[in-house]
Amino acid sequence: MKLLLINGPNLNLLGTREPEKYGNTTLSDIELNLTHYAKNNGAELDCFQSNHEGDIIDTIHSAKGKYDGLLINAGGLTHTSVSLRDAISSVAIPTVEIHMTNIHAREEFRHTSLISGVAIAQVVGFGKDSYILGLEGLINYLKN
Amino acid sequence: MKLLLINGPNLNLLGTREPEKYGNTTLSDIELNLTHYAKNNGAELDCFQSNHEGDIIDTIHSAKGKYDGLLINAGGLTHTSVSLRDAISSVAIPTVEIHMTNIHAREEFRHTSLISGVAIAQVVGFGKDSYILGLEGLINYLKN
Amino acid sequence: MKLLLINGPNLNLLGTREPEKYGNTTLSDIELNLTHYAKNNGAELDCFQSNHEGDIIDTIHSAKGKYDGLLINAGGLTHTSVSLRDAISSVAIPTVEIHMTNIHAREEFRHTSLISGVAIAQVVGFGKDSYILGLEGLINYLKN
Amino acid sequence: MKLLLINGPNLNLLGTREPEKYGNTTLSDIELNLTHYAKNNGAELDCFQSNHEGDIIDTIHSAKGKYDGLLINAGGLTHTSVSLRDAISSVAIPTVEIHMTNIHAREEFRHTSLISGVAIAQVVGFGKDSYILGLEGLINYLKN
Amino acid sequence: MKLLLINGPNLNLLGTREPEKYGNTTLSDIELNLTHYAKNNGAELDCFQSNHEGDIIDTIHSAKGKYDGLLINAGGLTHTSVSLRDAISSVAIPTVEIHMTNIHAREEFRHTSLISGVAIAQVVGFGKDSYILGLEGLINYLKN
Amino acid sequence: MKLLLINGPNLNLLGTREPEKYGNTTLSDIELNLTHYAKNNGAELDCFQSNHEGDIIDTIHSAKGKYDGLLINAGGLTHTSVSLRDAISSVAIPTVEIHMTNIHAREEFRHTSLISGVAIAQVVGFGKDSYILGLEGLINYLKN
Amino acid sequence: MKLLLINGPNLNLLGTREPEKYGNTTLSDIELNLTHYAKNNGAELDCFQSNHEGDIIDTIHSAKGKYDGLLINAGGLTHTSVSLRDAISSVAIPTVEIHMTNIHAREEFRHTSLISGVAIAQVVGFGKDSYILGLEGLINYLKN
Amino acid sequence: MKLLLINGPNLNLLGTREPEKYGNTTLSDIELNLTHYAKNNGAELDCFQSNHEGDIIDTIHSAKGKYDGLLINAGGLTHTSVSLRDAISSVAIPTVEIHMTNIHAREEFRHTSLISGVAIAQVVGFGKDSYILGLEGLINYLKN
Amino acid sequence: MKLLLINGPNLNLLGTREPEKYGNTTLSDIELNLTHYAKNNGAELDCFQSNHEGDIIDTIHSAKGKYDGLLINAGGLTHTSVSLRDAISSVAIPTVEIHMTNIHAREEFRHTSLISGVAIAQVVGFGKDSYILGLEGLINYLKN
Amino acid sequence: MKLLLINGPNLNLLGTREPEKYGNTTLSDIELNLTHYAKNNGAELDCFQSNHEGDIIDTIHSAKGKYDGLLINAGGLTHTSVSLRDAISSVAIPTVEIHMTNIHAREEFRHTSLISGVAIAQVVGFGKDSYILGLEGLINYLKN
Amino acid sequence: MKLLLINGPNLNLLGTREPEKYGNTTLSDIELNLTHYAKNNGAELDCFQSNHEGDIIDTIHSAKGKYDGLLINAGGLTHTSVSLRDAISSVAIPTVEIHMTNIHAREEFRHTSLISGVAIAQVVGFGKDSYILGLEGLINYLKN
Amino acid sequence: MKLLLINGPNLNLLGTREPEKYGNTTLSDIELNLTHYAKNNGAELDCFQSNHEGDIIDTIHSAKGKYDGLLINAGGLTHTSVSLRDAISSVAIPTVEIHMTNIHAREEFRHTSLISGVAIAQVVGFGKDSYILGLEGLINYLKN
Repeated sequence: MKLLLINGPNLNLLGTREPEKYGNTTLSDIELNLTHYAKNNGAELDCFQSNHEGDIIDTIHSAKGKYDGLLINAGGLTHTSVSLRDAISSVAIPTVEIHMTNIHAREEFRHTSLISGVAIAQVVGFGKDSYILGLEGLINYLKN
Repeated sequence: MKLLLINGPNLNLLGTREPEKYGNTTLSDIELNLTHYAKNNGAELDCFQSNHEGDIIDTIHSAKGKYDGLLINAGGLTHTSVSLRDAISSVAIPTVEIHMTNIHAREEFRHTSLISGVAIAQVVGFGKDSYILGLEGLINYLKN
Repeated sequence: MKLLLINGPNLNLLGTREPEKYGNTTLSDIELNLTHYAKNNGAELDCFQSNHEGDIIDTIHSAKGKYDGLLINAGGLTHTSVSLRDAISSVAIPTVEIHMTNIHAREEFRHTSLISGVAIAQVVGFGKDSYILGLEGLINYLKN
Repeated sequence: MKLLLINGPNLNLLGTREPEKYGNTTLSDIELNLTHYAKNNGAELDCFQSNHEGDIIDTIHSAKGKYDGLLINAGGLTHTSVSLRDAISSVAIPTVEIHMTNIHAREEFRHTSLISGVAIAQVVGFGKDSYILGLEGLINYLKN
Repeated sequence: MKLLLINGPNLNLLGTREPEKYGNTTLSDIELNLTHYAKNNGAELDCFQSNHEGDIIDTIHSAKGKYDGLLINAGGLTHTSVSLRDAISSVAIPTVEIHMTNIHAREEFRHTSLISGVAIAQVVGFGKDSYILGLEGLINYLKN
Repeated sequence: MKLLLINGPNLNLLGTREPEKYGNTTLSDIELNLTHYAKNNGAELDCFQSNHEGDIIDTIHSAKGKYDGLLINAGGLTHTSVSLRDAISSVAIPTVEIHMTNIHAREEFRHTSLISGVAIAQVVGFGKDSYILGLEGLINYLKN
Repeated sequence: MKLLLINGPNLNLLGTREPEKYGNTTLSDIELNLTHYAKNNGAELDCFQSNHEGDIIDTIHSAKGKYDGLLINAGGLTHTSVSLRDAISSVAIPTVEIHMTNIHAREEFRHTSLISGVAIAQVVGFGKDSYILGLEGLINYLKN
Repeated sequence: MKLLLINGPNLNLLGTREPEKYGNTTLSDIELNLTHYAKNNGAELDCFQSNHEGDIIDTIHSAKGKYDGLLINAGGLTHTSVSLRDAISSVAIPTVEIHMTNIHAREEFRHTSLISGVAIAQVVGFGKDSYILGLEGLINYLKN
Repeated sequence: MKLLLINGPNLNLLGTREPEKYGNTTLSDIELNLTHYAKNNGAELDCFQSNHEGDIIDTIHSAKGKYDGLLINAGGLTHTSVSLRDAISSVAIPTVEIHMTNIHAREEFRHTSLISGVAIAQVVGFGKDSYILGLEGLINYLKN
Repeated sequence: MKLLLINGPNLNLLGTREPEKYGNTTLSDIELNLTHYAKNNGAELDCFQSNHEGDIIDTIHSAKGKYDGLLINAGGLTHTSVSLRDAISSVAIPTVEIHMTNIHAREEFRHTSLISGVAIAQVVGFGKDSYILGLEGLINYLKN
Repeated sequence: MKLLLINGPNLNLLGTREPEKYGNTTLSDIELNLTHYAKNNGAELDCFQSNHEGDIIDTIHSAKGKYDGLLINAGGLTHTSVSLRDAISSVAIPTVEIHMTNIHAREEFRHTSLISGVAIAQVVGFGKDSYILGLEGLINYLKN
Repeated sequence: MKLLLINGPNLNLLGTREPEKYGNTTLSDIELNLTHYAKNNGAELDCFQSNHEGDIIDTIHSAKGKYDGLLINAGGLTHTSVSLRDAISSVAIPTVEIHMTNIHAREEFRHTSLISGVAIAQVVGFGKDSYILGLEGLINYLKN
């Protein structure tokens, strides 16, 4: 079982800025942590981050046939990118949507996710734990 | 660490009807499963289900001082009950919101949750696994 | 053929108040009348009324396997209860929705029915005759 | 007691097309059936169908003084014709609105009926039985 | 100067029904009165009424080259017919829109006129005087 | 019969600016013209203009008992002043609303008039003739 | 003069939680205070609180013939319960609506009250004094 | 403790017109009554009324440092004046909003109050008693 | 392969009026041109135009069994006729929707097409070439 | 080059109240500063402030022919006054709109400016510097 | 005559995935086919595809002076990219918009195209034939 | 003091196309001009332009710690990019938003800016002077 973790715009800044809001854990810490967890549960995890919508779409395209599941925190693209939604829909790989913060308790324009309709599930609001819970859920889903 | 699992209207029917949609797992199976998981992770879990909004509110009120965290799948009340929202907000116990299905890919009137604004996090769409992931996230949250 | 008539909040007041608006026929009169009509047409009708959403949901749950059809005037819950909709949908018993007044010619918030989407039919605006017409339609439906 | 049944655009196709959706009953069958029912209940029923809004309005105008009640399935004009509404309102003949399908569970633009506001009642969603129920309700209304 | 008065659906009923709302003046009275007024002011007026949208459009088409101005009370088509708007726009004859009642103080769906955007002026709410005022305004407009 | 013509904000500029849009007729010309017309038809007309909402309301208040009818072009206040609406409603003097331009064919925020609901009639879009037609209609109304 | 004070969901928590927001006054204190005030002003006051919509509706029904006025703080039901509105409307007892906080300065979904349309008056935002002022207003209303 | 009562547009007409709607009590009566009530409760009340938004704003500005509380019935300005809201907000004097009628049961455009967000409380629908109750609530508020 | 070209209201005026907007090509020219194109591509094309909604619906009904494809420019009916949509849907003949102008760059009320949902394709904005491209696309569609 | 600075309701309070929000600079300071800046850049600046919409409109009217440019901070009138917009539009003097605070980050009702559509430019959010930057921009505009 | 075909995000996947929905034709097949068609009709066609909004904008910029017409299927960017719209508008090259599927019969968020307003025409819903029809229409447009 | 000027999609075309709308000033001219102005006012300005959202976000990220202020004209991304908003918010560098044209007087979809909520100020509508005024305001802001 091979999985791909995708992080969208601004998530490369995790842990280095606004620690009072997002904690001190960096994206590298999260990626390392998830890679270990995957290995211990019989899966292999690759990681990718980009601030470029086009690069994320290219990566999703090339995931077809290589990966069995996607874990994605699309950042601001969550609310604006029909193209990203179409990419996920096109490759038809089971996808879990993740958000660290509770997007429903933030600005109005963050309440709608274009990705939710093509994802199988969401984990929202557990901070960095959203990642590990989403990964766990995805692995269980693929085993069943 | 003491936790309370609350299931709202119609969730007592789980596993006994519409198995093609919700599987054969009954609510008792889920409650048993979560109780074991909690015990193994140093927590104690009580379970409650009701089709009555008032009973759920009463239960939340009496949870104050007895429980450290709430795990709630409010069913149809999710989208309509300001009173339930106020109850959660009043007792100020950390609450995780759970849905088995992906509510964002269903009817328009299920897209808005009145509870999201007072919950710390949501797990949505993993079927019965939504419960176990939500419980795990809640325990981690309370430990940190 | 066994049928269940369900009346929601405030319908227990029929015939005893506001006779200029709803006539002098009480809910008991209607229930008696429908019971006779059902018997004459080869069906058996039970009756239930409650002002409690939870009790109505419990009743619908227990109707599964006991009744072949439901006749429901949900009163104010028509416009606000997703849980009631889910209960009807869960038991999958053919259901006819009834309103004595023309809800489309009243306040804006009465124009939308959450139940319509899971009912097989509606009868609206004939006063107490809405009940008898709905029952007749339901019996015909079940015979075909 | 003289009554007029009016069917609007596309209803002439009943029973000859899309039988899986509307059954095999033709408009002639329905008209014949209702005529008999009326006779047995002391009323006389005439029938009219047209795909032309103008012809329907002319017919409603000429109904004044000749008919005591109208039974109308206005088809697509239900949602778009203010003129039809005004015609019904002008002649002030008690009118019952009929729809075979549950218009509230179909496309958004079918949820609003311009006729509802000037009709005394509606019967919606019983298939061909909507006609007979509407006729019965109308006759009862006129007798009282 | 040749003018054409067009009356749309239901206006043939003027004066014969609902006198408490529209008075006893018939459409013939209005047409006669306007014809005299026109003659006394150096204009010639023809009159046309139909309940058929298509006939009104045909009439407007044939008015091109024959008439210098149009006076129209489109009745219910006012609010629903893009085709009528396009017909007026196509022939490019100065057109005055008339309504006897105050459409802005009636139902919501009468507040929008599709014709207003292509008319030069409106007279609204003077009862039968709306016609004479509109005619007077149109003649003045054409003289200047 | 005593009448009062009220002109609201910016209408004092009539005829002196933007002649290509409003013509060369000044507000004085209009007031003079209407005064003569009134006299010839057995009425007496007084005129008032102000850019101050408060002064217009004061004037309407003091009109009670002195005037039999009001003719008002409220300018921009048409769309924003609930107070002006309330003033007209309070004194209960028959009021005709006037606009020189076709407000329905201008910006969205000019499509709604708060005054229409308390006026007996409107004349819209005839340029300066809107005034004379409105006056004529008001006089006829008061005679009948 | 007999009056009934009804408090809806979560109001039983008054004074025991979130004192910085609602003060230390408990619901018992308020009820005691109002009972005394009523007695001193020639009225008798009974008190009722419930977190169950159905119980509140039952109580309102049984108030008919026993009480001359209702004082209600419906809590979260204010914004969601058509059934509660219908109950108040059915018994036709003069009702005053009360809120301790200024609901207009809180979340969007609290800005609309379904009860306002059937109440005679509201008192909003005076904290616990909202109750005493509402009671005073209700007594004055009933005396006149 | 010094207080200022402000009445907005059209409220000078109280008691002199539409007595069937507002009663015979004049604004002077109300002002006199409130002045006495204030004196008996250890406060001094000044009164001001104007139909001019600008004068009301000027008055509020000059109230800074002179008055401890404001009581305002802004009439039609309630729904339209951002400037009035800003004036109240600028001087930061505790303000109670008053309406004689139940604005929530009137036209749609009266349902929103721009003042509510900066007022501490509202009293709505008690007729002239709204004033006395608002004054009482304001005095209590200032004492605590 | 037999095809039918349907043109709706006002399209009979093509080429004879507003040549600066629509060019000099008449509807006859277009019909002749399309007939030749069809013949050269192994299809037979009949042509129909009417300003009457009812006649167009009748024609579509009678097209069932006679024609394999429809090409329709419904003019103003595009945006307002649910009946026309239902007619196309009822006969289930593949239909291509055509507009000469770019309706998306015109008035707001032209942006929505009721026909689009039941057509297989649209060609918009190529002037008279929209017809030939639509015909070509329809023939290709039917061959595959 | 002669310019006029107009400040609307509540701006007379600048610097004397809420210094933590608006600083200690008074309106006089700003007016003095801008007058000097104008003189140094070959322009002459007059200043005007009022809390009265009518006075501001009168002032704009009389600016015609006397001033080459307007600089306006309309305060709360920005969002509500169509009359003010019309006044600016009527005199056709180039106008720059100014706000000290970032209105886009405040309440919803401050996000729309009725003036923006008739102004040539806006400067928003620089505190008192918004004035000097707006003046500089206006002078440059008039020189080119 | 030189033309450029631009395909946006996800269109590189054509023919390789979801063949039941989009057929087996690859983007290369389409590009080859269109290139031949163009050559046979006296035009030269270049092809470009990218999943990167920025690359598409760069390409459109560099098209200025090199190409006489653009053919664009912008995929998901159709509904979200104001920048793409601005790019097309800036270079002022005649542009035809293409969609393989009927976007009007899909999700709500696909019903609005930001490109339509700056394109000269659209071809929608013919599958791969949409490309060839759009090319044909563009060539005809440029020849005339 | 180090500052960064960022220009978004299509702004590289400034001065080379549509000179009648944007003038002949190129982006290089503007950048040169601003660089000089900055130097003369004790600041250092770097310049960056891209049509790629991802590149702009990368640039903003790397600005952290290097620049004290940002000046941004985001072009079409202004209205659609939540990611860009998040980038500005993440680095927490004071940012001034600039637009050459008056976006409030253009299409509806340009009226909302996602950036305004995280910027400190905006300058809109002064053509190329918007840049110099924004820079001046930013420098003043940073000095205070």
